[in-house]
Amino acid sequence: MSVYTSVSTAELAQWLQRYALGELVELKGIAAGITNTNYFVTTTHGRYVLTLFEVLQLDELPYFLELKSHLARHGVACPAPIADHNDHFASLLAGKPACLVSCLDGHDVAAPNAAQCYAVGEMLAQMHKASSTFPRRMRNPRGPEWWSRTAAALYPQLPAADAASLRSEIAFQDSHRFDFLPQGVIHADLFKDNVLMDGDRIAGFIDFYYACNDILLYDLAIALNDWARDVQGDIDAELARAIIAGYQSIRPLTEEERKAWPVMLRAAALRFWVSRLLDFYRPASGEMTYTKDPGVFQRLLEAHRARQDFWL
Amino acid sequence: MSVYTSVSTAELAQWLQRYALGELVELKGIAAGITNTNYFVTTTHGRYVLTLFEVLQLDELPYFLELKSHLARHGVACPAPIADHNDHFASLLAGKPACLVSCLDGHDVAAPNAAQCYAVGEMLAQMHKASSTFPRRMRNPRGPEWWSRTAAALYPQLPAADAASLRSEIAFQDSHRFDFLPQGVIHADLFKDNVLMDGDRIAGFIDFYYACNDILLYDLAIALNDWARDVQGDIDAELARAIIAGYQSIRPLTEEERKAWPVMLRAAALRFWVSRLLDFYRPASGEMTYTKDPGVFQRLLEAHRARQDFWL
Repeated sequence: MSVYTSVSTAELAQWLQRYALGELVELKGIAAGITNTNYFVTTTHGRYVLTLFEVLQLDELPYFLELKSHLARHGVACPAPIADHNDHFASLLAGKPACLVSCLDGHDVAAPNAAQCYAVGEMLAQMHKASSTFPRRMRNPRGPEWWSRTAAALYPQLPAADAASLRSEIAFQDSHRFDFLPQGVIHADLFKDNVLMDGDRIAGFIDFYYACNDILLYDLAIALNDWARDVQGDIDAELARAIIAGYQSIRPLTEEERKAWPVMLRAAALRFWVSRLLDFYRPASGEMTYTKDPGVFQRLLEAHRARQDFWL
Repeated sequence: MSVYTSVSTAELAQWLQRYALGELVELKGIAAGITNTNYFVTTTHGRYVLTLFEVLQLDELPYFLELKSHLARHGVACPAPIADHNDHFASLLAGKPACLVSCLDGHDVAAPNAAQCYAVGEMLAQMHKASSTFPRRMRNPRGPEWWSRTAAALYPQLPAADAASLRSEIAFQDSHRFDFLPQGVIHADLFKDNVLMDGDRIAGFIDFYYACNDILLYDLAIALNDWARDVQGDIDAELARAIIAGYQSIRPLTEEERKAWPVMLRAAALRFWVSRLLDFYRPASGEMTYTKDPGVFQRLLEAHRARQDFWL
């Protein structure tokens, strides 16, 4: 259960007066989300999701909320933030920055089929195209500089073999530069639990709080590393081909992107290996119960290193 | 059936490439709407309404489409226009300005109940509040200057008694100025057929193509004159009180608005009497089958003149 901040119906009813959404009917906590508090809010007009941000500050939210608004306005499946009468998407509630977004149908899937992987690839490419007119910029806070710095702090705590593997991969990635590849707004965390599916149709991408401006191909690699990963932890070739085919149905990869693809898959695995190592060895308070196995991405990275066929 | 402009699936499929909405699945004409051509468009991502504008030009659309986008962003129930990859809401299709909007549930009601009237009044006030931050401006093309000019051209064709009644009302309205009353964006045509209801809930206001900046109270009068009008053509007091109560639950009327209310109800009846007279005596080609009885608003106006109780 991830309701960290309690909101009373009385204070919510008062806060809702700043919106055009009618009267509060029901408030119900949502048992999902790791770093934020989420509620379903039903009013006389409809159903919304209320998010209270436990880490992000009010002045850090415009990039993410305006991005979602921009994408929703272009028909990309994602929750649409609701603006209040001051034309703001967020304001303080119970002492936390808070926002309301439209409520989507659908739910996440644990074991996607090829049609669902195709749909994810297609919608990801639509998101990349539609965000080309989004005017705000955000650098990736989890880029090469971050993983190098984080790894350096972790080496003393890691088993020697793991430290050597990590050090070697970071050196390998440092020897590759991708600044020349197509860039734009990336979701940067498009795992299975961040997509709501309605059958084989995408009901919505959610949880845009790692979104930033970076290399588009990197976003596809992050998504593939989760969506096409089977229960043994390696990549299912059929699912991998489906997500790539869906993506290319909208935005065919360039020759340079195709050349960079094997290294990019490793970069995407490295980024989550490092963040999971960080969560494992230095858990933030309140997140301990959600710590996920870093070994998943270490093994995937090592499988990528040994691989010959990258499904292109 | 109001499909004036035919669109082929081939040309629509091509045009849809400029959007992030997936592949065309089905195209189906809509038998509603007087001055525009409407279709339901189903794609692999969802269902939308396509409008081809038969009268409005491309450069006249931004006020209306950006207004709907602004209202939808604030949670006011209305169709949300979809932006294309150039960030435009409209472009040419089959030689006509065309746009896509989200598809709403619900349908219009011919004989609303008091709860529905309350909901319409409430949502109208929400619309008025939410549009206070809308930056564009549009003068009312159907204001006093228009009805005076239009009536002058019609007098020679009208029966003498009708002409006298019309002339007298215009003189009466000319003797009242309302510039001091609260102004903002008004729908200006919120009749029963321009609201989709889902039970007693508003699914959406539609058809914003008379929207403009004018006196807010005038918008309430226009809506009440249609929503609360009974089969005899006079106002049902219970429905009238419901729509006013719904409106005031969000934006209580000022003392000056309460004083102006009886005259405003007459102004709202006059505006539609004149436009229906114009349609009756000078029908535009293609609209002849939709000409509505001008006498409805003449009789309502005369009932307002004789009235003592205005449901406030």
